[in-house]
Amino acid sequence: MFNIFKNKAKEEKNKLEKFFNPSSVAVVGATANLGKVGNTIAKNLLELGYSGKVFLVNPKHDELFDRKCYKSLEEIEEAVDLAIVAIPADFALEAVKKSSEKVKNFVIVSAGFSETGMEGKRKEDELRAIAEEKNLNILGPNCLGFINPKIKLNASFAGGMSEAGNVAFVSQSGALVVALMDVAKKENIKFSNLVSVGNEMQMNEIALIEYFGEDENVDVIGLYLEGIKEGEKFVEVARRVSAKKPIVVLKAGKTDRAQKAISSHTGALAGSDAIMNEAFSKAGVVRAENLENFFDLIEVISKSSAVKNENVIVVTNAGGPGVLTTDAFENKKIKLAEIENKTKEKLREFLPSESSVENPIDLLGDADEVRYSKTLEVCNDTEAGSILCLLTPQDQTPVEKIADEIIKFKRNTDKNVLVAFIGGEKIEKALKKLQESGIPNVPFPDRAVLALEKYYKWGKARESLFAVSETKKNQARVKKVEEIIFKAKNDGRTALFFSEAAEIMGLYGVNTVDFANVKDGMPGGLNFGFPMVAKVDSDKTLHKTDKEGLILGIKNEQELDEALGRLRKNFPNENLIIQPMQDIKMELIVGIKHDASFGPVVVYGLGGIYTEIFKQVNFLISPMNAEEIQKHLLASNIGFLFQSTRGQKPMDVSEMAEILHSVMELAREAESVLEFDINPLLVYNNKKAVAVDVKIII
Amino acid sequence: MFNIFKNKAKEEKNKLEKFFNPSSVAVVGATANLGKVGNTIAKNLLELGYSGKVFLVNPKHDELFDRKCYKSLEEIEEAVDLAIVAIPADFALEAVKKSSEKVKNFVIVSAGFSETGMEGKRKEDELRAIAEEKNLNILGPNCLGFINPKIKLNASFAGGMSEAGNVAFVSQSGALVVALMDVAKKENIKFSNLVSVGNEMQMNEIALIEYFGEDENVDVIGLYLEGIKEGEKFVEVARRVSAKKPIVVLKAGKTDRAQKAISSHTGALAGSDAIMNEAFSKAGVVRAENLENFFDLIEVISKSSAVKNENVIVVTNAGGPGVLTTDAFENKKIKLAEIENKTKEKLREFLPSESSVENPIDLLGDADEVRYSKTLEVCNDTEAGSILCLLTPQDQTPVEKIADEIIKFKRNTDKNVLVAFIGGEKIEKALKKLQESGIPNVPFPDRAVLALEKYYKWGKARESLFAVSETKKNQARVKKVEEIIFKAKNDGRTALFFSEAAEIMGLYGVNTVDFANVKDGMPGGLNFGFPMVAKVDSDKTLHKTDKEGLILGIKNEQELDEALGRLRKNFPNENLIIQPMQDIKMELIVGIKHDASFGPVVVYGLGGIYTEIFKQVNFLISPMNAEEIQKHLLASNIGFLFQSTRGQKPMDVSEMAEILHSVMELAREAESVLEFDINPLLVYNNKKAVAVDVKIII
Repeated sequence: MFNIFKNKAKEEKNKLEKFFNPSSVAVVGATANLGKVGNTIAKNLLELGYSGKVFLVNPKHDELFDRKCYKSLEEIEEAVDLAIVAIPADFALEAVKKSSEKVKNFVIVSAGFSETGMEGKRKEDELRAIAEEKNLNILGPNCLGFINPKIKLNASFAGGMSEAGNVAFVSQSGALVVALMDVAKKENIKFSNLVSVGNEMQMNEIALIEYFGEDENVDVIGLYLEGIKEGEKFVEVARRVSAKKPIVVLKAGKTDRAQKAISSHTGALAGSDAIMNEAFSKAGVVRAENLENFFDLIEVISKSSAVKNENVIVVTNAGGPGVLTTDAFENKKIKLAEIENKTKEKLREFLPSESSVENPIDLLGDADEVRYSKTLEVCNDTEAGSILCLLTPQDQTPVEKIADEIIKFKRNTDKNVLVAFIGGEKIEKALKKLQESGIPNVPFPDRAVLALEKYYKWGKARESLFAVSETKKNQARVKKVEEIIFKAKNDGRTALFFSEAAEIMGLYGVNTVDFANVKDGMPGGLNFGFPMVAKVDSDKTLHKTDKEGLILGIKNEQELDEALGRLRKNFPNENLIIQPMQDIKMELIVGIKHDASFGPVVVYGLGGIYTEIFKQVNFLISPMNAEEIQKHLLASNIGFLFQSTRGQKPMDVSEMAEILHSVMELAREAESVLEFDINPLLVYNNKKAVAVDVKIII
Repeated sequence: MFNIFKNKAKEEKNKLEKFFNPSSVAVVGATANLGKVGNTIAKNLLELGYSGKVFLVNPKHDELFDRKCYKSLEEIEEAVDLAIVAIPADFALEAVKKSSEKVKNFVIVSAGFSETGMEGKRKEDELRAIAEEKNLNILGPNCLGFINPKIKLNASFAGGMSEAGNVAFVSQSGALVVALMDVAKKENIKFSNLVSVGNEMQMNEIALIEYFGEDENVDVIGLYLEGIKEGEKFVEVARRVSAKKPIVVLKAGKTDRAQKAISSHTGALAGSDAIMNEAFSKAGVVRAENLENFFDLIEVISKSSAVKNENVIVVTNAGGPGVLTTDAFENKKIKLAEIENKTKEKLREFLPSESSVENPIDLLGDADEVRYSKTLEVCNDTEAGSILCLLTPQDQTPVEKIADEIIKFKRNTDKNVLVAFIGGEKIEKALKKLQESGIPNVPFPDRAVLALEKYYKWGKARESLFAVSETKKNQARVKKVEEIIFKAKNDGRTALFFSEAAEIMGLYGVNTVDFANVKDGMPGGLNFGFPMVAKVDSDKTLHKTDKEGLILGIKNEQELDEALGRLRKNFPNENLIIQPMQDIKMELIVGIKHDASFGPVVVYGLGGIYTEIFKQVNFLISPMNAEEIQKHLLASNIGFLFQSTRGQKPMDVSEMAEILHSVMELAREAESVLEFDINPLLVYNNKKAVAVDVKIII
């Protein structure tokens, strides 16, 4: 099982090896015209230290930049490992077509493809077809290109060169590649690669995660994403790579686009960004809160080894920032370490009596480098996994000397060491030193704590990132469900009757409430008595309470007659059903939401009015097995139901996990189900859960 | 009413005028010893440009810094407007005592007072007594001092001088004064005053808000607070000043200290930081999320006029940052402005066709200064109150020229203009220009949007910051309540019986459920029948469900006998009561929480299991009238109860407001009530709300 994946990853690695590490590069569209993309690329290749061969291609010139200029790629008599194409779309297509026997790797920076409409899309389709036929690797089109600092290759039209290091950055926005490069210079972040993926015709974030996952130079993969096309595959690959190294994602586009009219309750509830969150969590991916947090994460992760444990010691020369840092730990998974008595005693030996030896350890405003250095030494003997050094530049503070001591300390410790120096001019030089020594500086305590926590959570999560569970479809069941749906569609209905829905639920082992269809009179041989519920069962009346299609608490024959009479009057040609009234302990809602990236997602949460009030539903991204679902349930916002609180017996978590697993199977198997929800699902601590209303839209 | 406040504020202003603007300053403890506080202060006075008279005081010297040195303050033959005292606590006390006829204003930087324990507290008490007797103004003790850049007076032991401007900063941490000064230099933030308040023996944040509220040089007051002693007064003063100018607060110490054992549900629920939030909201104060946000708010507010409306136009040269900015507006009170068609047409006249004329307006990666400038001109004719200019430094981007255009534009517009340039080296020079021109730069879109929103919300809130409502105690009612409580205390009880609690509720017009006390048999003449509830009514059994002290759904005499038998067996000597069973539509909880800063606070929220699950209670800080409470209810997390949803009739908001107002009156009037809650309070949309259980701890 795992071997298959390993082979896949290796294949991807081999396939792109030459693409990212070419011995020779050609620029199609090279020009001497300043300001042109083809000019920047040519100069990037010629002037930034790339030691491979460079060929310039432009049919209008014989010579460019004092070297030979070729008419076409085919004319080049030597091997070309990579071609960068910067000419209008039609010509680009032509160039690839003609040279596709000779050249196998392309960066196509040219715009004018699928991003521009139907005509462009046609060109892109043609390009894809060639790539598939000729087994080409194409980055783009409509991209900035990529940069590989290790071989000083800037195959892009962004200026400059980054330092070579351990961060691979893959971006759906070229501008963010440029911005990150510039920020990185200040923060001393170093890159293995920076890749702008453009239209992702072929080489997308999934292929690149796979590739950089295998690249031993890469310690952290950063992604800027606006959308994910193949959600399930993304989760599968990212999860596998996350078990090895952290993937940090900045996902833009949180705001939901206008939703289509949706009839089921679940459909209307679920936000696609919340599903994205769930998918990232399943994939073990570190999601950045925003651009600043993304930069912080890249800085902290690329400069530190994994966080050993949740305990953090904070050292400060001022009380105020110490208190603010304490606040920053609130509701976090990392925490201020308890300082042991023996440690406190060691600290008291040299700290002034007004110092605090509690965490944050307050060295006072007149702390010098010796006080910092001795304190760090003492902390080194504790269990804490990380040390955060705060500093405000007070009048007597030897800021640079303190930085020197921190740098010295870092060389001899296996703890994570972060600094948060707060100030302007007075700390500038010290920061430069720290950055050059690879010590992450996140200038505000909140940001430092947030970045460290996310890194810590990745380390915890990776322990459970075993392979995604596989599932097989139950074909006999699929057939039966499709028959039921086919019949309903044939009748011209867009929703199933309760009787049909209940039959499907039966196939999946979900218990539904007893019922009887009512025609003209009362059905005989009922399995239940009063009190009863009468309701209309129709695809035209989906929100029953809104339109008074539901009458509760019917106590006797007479009330039943009245109720049915009223329903018949209001809904003349619709099917009516009766059900036994259920006692309510806890109402839940369970449904299926079709997500553009991740396919059918199971949604669950509190039912009744609380669904809408708290809008705190939970998502399950398939595939998952019942055991994984059970863990999810316990960690969810309805986890409290399965713990005994205030002397109450808990509800059965394994029963609930089975129900959710069944719904997940239904979601995968029954492709003609457009929307689905059980609302309410009544759960108890002393009897079986029961689905009271099951809505299946087809 | 308002005049009284105005006079108070004027008085405070006059009282401190000379303190902050002295014509002569003496330093007690001046010394030539480098590294000593008295040395730094002397140099700060002599070398940073202060033009008033400076007197050095130190009995050990005749001359210091080439000028006369006095033995004592009394020896100085001229007037001394302000004395800065930097000698050990005992001597400081002595110096103030002896000179208190001559000098009226003191900064006492000396430590060794109440912060050090009982002996220090005694000294501080003595100092306070002198101050009161002699009508002195004392800042500190144990403070850094203050800085008034307008007259180049640095009356502190922080080095350096800030530029003179419109920000007053008051801090309970000296280190943050130092850090803010250093950050401010970089960001070009200018100060009217920086004040470190130390132990706040006399001059605290309230007095200073009052003073700077009246100071016309001050446009924004920034506060760093770790605690608020006089909560009610803080709200009253801050609310009055907030109606004139924004007060930005960074409140540290969110994490709750270990709580005392608390018997009522409400007491255990309420977090003091959430109450702090409510108090700030009532006071119209802008609360910063964290240190970074605090600096951002000071920068944005000090450099811009109030935000005119919620509409913001974002101009960008890259799509990615545009999408991230769109995300930043999610769930915010400010929003991306709708771009009108006529505006789009004007933009299309000069923008390339691939540009986006939707908001964010995307000028594309090759945008130059002309494209920015023309776009800004067009935006100037729209209704939007603010414009946020994003920029990533792409290869061809003329960053400085674009900054120049933004600066030019800002001079001729009444809109708020913010920039968020994202990068490192490439944007440095442009940022410097922008800062010098007073244009706030908040380097990440999230931070810019958050700061702008908070500023906007202040502007909205100030409209309703009329005077705090006054209330009078109903003395007759107070007397009756105290009688009931006195009697129970006399019986040795720590909680009231339901009968007593119901009587008190009756005095406040809150409807309680019918009940009867059960002695040996059944009470006669009941007003209610079955189903019933039987429960133990005792101060020893407060959480009834935990200990099975509550039996629900008793259907007949026989069940009642059994129930009472069981209760008598489990709670042999306790009082038992019966009540009619209530049908439940919606359970709420209402209580009183005694807060260390704000006194008795009314707490309300969802009852039943949801209280604990969601922990989303709401707070009312007294005093408030019923109308204000009604507004609060509608905006609270139970506001949905008072709107009709899904065809359901809403509950009565004015009835609920009356109940909460009654509880607030009780909280103010009944000082011997230690804890109080109604749990549950049942509310309906077709009948009167009823308190089922009322717990009063005395």
